[in-house]
Amino acid sequence: MADTAETRQDRFKRGMKVLTEIDGDSGQKVIDSLADISPELGHQVVAWAFGDIYNRPGLAPRDRQLVTLGMLTALGGCEPQLDVHINASLNVGLTPDEITEALLHASVYCGMPKALNATFVAKKVFTERGLLPTPPGESA
Amino acid sequence: MADTAETRQDRFKRGMKVLTEIDGDSGQKVIDSLADISPELGHQVVAWAFGDIYNRPGLAPRDRQLVTLGMLTALGGCEPQLDVHINASLNVGLTPDEITEALLHASVYCGMPKALNATFVAKKVFTERGLLPTPPGESA
Amino acid sequence: MADTAETRQDRFKRGMKVLTEIDGDSGQKVIDSLADISPELGHQVVAWAFGDIYNRPGLAPRDRQLVTLGMLTALGGCEPQLDVHINASLNVGLTPDEITEALLHASVYCGMPKALNATFVAKKVFTERGLLPTPPGESA
Amino acid sequence: MADTAETRQDRFKRGMKVLTEIDGDSGQKVIDSLADISPELGHQVVAWAFGDIYNRPGLAPRDRQLVTLGMLTALGGCEPQLDVHINASLNVGLTPDEITEALLHASVYCGMPKALNATFVAKKVFTERGLLPTPPGESA
Amino acid sequence: MADTAETRQDRFKRGMKVLTEIDGDSGQKVIDSLADISPELGHQVVAWAFGDIYNRPGLAPRDRQLVTLGMLTALGGCEPQLDVHINASLNVGLTPDEITEALLHASVYCGMPKALNATFVAKKVFTERGLLPTPPGESA
Amino acid sequence: MADTAETRQDRFKRGMKVLTEIDGDSGQKVIDSLADISPELGHQVVAWAFGDIYNRPGLAPRDRQLVTLGMLTALGGCEPQLDVHINASLNVGLTPDEITEALLHASVYCGMPKALNATFVAKKVFTERGLLPTPPGESA
Repeated sequence: MADTAETRQDRFKRGMKVLTEIDGDSGQKVIDSLADISPELGHQVVAWAFGDIYNRPGLAPRDRQLVTLGMLTALGGCEPQLDVHINASLNVGLTPDEITEALLHASVYCGMPKALNATFVAKKVFTERGLLPTPPGESA
Repeated sequence: MADTAETRQDRFKRGMKVLTEIDGDSGQKVIDSLADISPELGHQVVAWAFGDIYNRPGLAPRDRQLVTLGMLTALGGCEPQLDVHINASLNVGLTPDEITEALLHASVYCGMPKALNATFVAKKVFTERGLLPTPPGESA
Repeated sequence: MADTAETRQDRFKRGMKVLTEIDGDSGQKVIDSLADISPELGHQVVAWAFGDIYNRPGLAPRDRQLVTLGMLTALGGCEPQLDVHINASLNVGLTPDEITEALLHASVYCGMPKALNATFVAKKVFTERGLLPTPPGESA
Repeated sequence: MADTAETRQDRFKRGMKVLTEIDGDSGQKVIDSLADISPELGHQVVAWAFGDIYNRPGLAPRDRQLVTLGMLTALGGCEPQLDVHINASLNVGLTPDEITEALLHASVYCGMPKALNATFVAKKVFTERGLLPTPPGESA
Repeated sequence: MADTAETRQDRFKRGMKVLTEIDGDSGQKVIDSLADISPELGHQVVAWAFGDIYNRPGLAPRDRQLVTLGMLTALGGCEPQLDVHINASLNVGLTPDEITEALLHASVYCGMPKALNATFVAKKVFTERGLLPTPPGESA
Repeated sequence: MADTAETRQDRFKRGMKVLTEIDGDSGQKVIDSLADISPELGHQVVAWAFGDIYNRPGLAPRDRQLVTLGMLTALGGCEPQLDVHINASLNVGLTPDEITEALLHASVYCGMPKALNATFVAKKVFTERGLLPTPPGESA
């Protein structure tokens, strides 16, 4: 890769493009809400997390979201970020069924409480986007 | 133990019986709230967590709740589950004093913030059930 | 150090003095809210955490708050305690910029979600104390 | 789905088939090592985690591993399970580059220490399987 | 309760008595290993954790150990403390079967990885004390 | 701040200078050990964590280490990073007594097990650097 010189603004713009593609408006809202308290944290979320890391070609956006859903469920207490990233997961092509299946899968590794907490965030997001009820599956 | 064949429905019914004995209505509410988003997660909470694990004779329900209070306090961010399980603890015979003592004990292993968060959930549950104030003990 | 005999009340009084200096009213409110559910937990927060540990001369109050901000951010789910301790950090002389910088620093070690959660608690506290916006720094 | 009656042994066999496909020998070793201390935990890992959950068609094994890598990295202290599941990730078709990229992605959400710990487990596994060095990418 | 004045040494002696009853030699070893690095941490473990908290009559030692097993399993990364407290659990009357059942129960709330990590510590402790294999139960 | 264009190499060099000042050789060793598995993770630790964040003037290196000690202790399972950062803390001017006091302070917020785990890493580091025993303080 050519090692082109970039300014902070160049990196920010590059990240903003990725953030908008993936998170839509909800990413921008997080950045806006940081403007008066920690604009540098907003900058780093955009320029580093999205511009430097998310933007890398080695893993598809859909795959990054699967990893991210796993991490946010496991960490606990990250419901606001799960909201953003369940929306993002839908935006990059994961289906509602794949998302709920991923969170069911989480019960094995993180336990039922964290799987439940994440699933109720998914319920909120799916309700807002008119995606409920999910099609009947094989459950009792 | 005879290894009797069971259907999913058999296992669900077995678990539902245990869940109702221990959690009363609040367990059912959690299952109901999963019906349109992840009925399979609801099934697994009932059939596996309660039917297969909780139902085992090797540890008394009261003892399982002591372990559970410790885990939910330590995990953090599990206030909704603490609410259900502090209710359950009362249902299976732990006294309010034993519960607050267990959460005080948690301060040694999990630190004060998590002990405080759990104790404030207990305050909410005890208030709802008319159990406050707890009898004066030996405190300052 | 002379090993003077102290009663529980002596230790409580010693801790209460430290708690009030550092946390102001918000510490007292936490203790008050424990009075009907777990007065012993309130006693231990005061007598042990503040009287025995916080009161020790080996680390300045400002330095203790830096360690505490790091811990509460890393633990996750401790927003109520972050509220108390961001107030305390201001009370013992950390500037708003130092606090937001510490929480930005946290993104390296705890990841962006926990750094964001803590920063939004700081935003709430700084807003209540009329400290926003922070002066423009070097951000995009 | 027809709700066929199954014995514990049926469910165990079903899970053992999935476990062997995904984890190869390392899964069996974990079960064997539980035989004299908690055979029921071994049974539940096989019959429930693999037979009931992993076996579900709603998410591809490769996708389940991406979620799992995210969770185990975020939980911390799960190096033995990361070892098993980095092996499993290779077994179900994730490339070494996708795995290291997923763990780099984890630095954004879990922070550098947990990303480093997981990456060093990947280094051990890749070394054992003769997969190092990974092909030169775009790094410094 | 009469609020008797106590010196630091009084509180330490009171805690040491409890620590020895419960942990036997392993507690003393932890305190000894702190002597040259942080004797005050050793003092607080003894005087506060055991003298002030563990010593309270509101919860039986056996019950405190059940809570503690739950917390240490959930926290993760606390294998050295699990070693001490699985020994302590045996010392205060929990049976090997109750301990493994409590750790199996933990799989529901903390997930399989942490339940496995804790169970392998139990295997080490039970082996050292000649308690393996546990009697055959109802497992596959 | 002038927004000068920088290449990846420029940012890496800037970070490497900070890393070397603070961590000495141990930072370099971590980067080296990543070279054959995830050189990009090594790059980001240097260029982002140290070049972009640690390098900012808003918080003194000593203060950043206090926050970092708190975070690593609270996260758990980060003993390798605690080793690096206890060394770094000594390098930037924290005294052994301040470090052990910070870790004692951690017992209030993270609980005794994590405070003990961190203190035993400090014991290892202080032993390697000939700093034990610490001077007798006010302990029992």
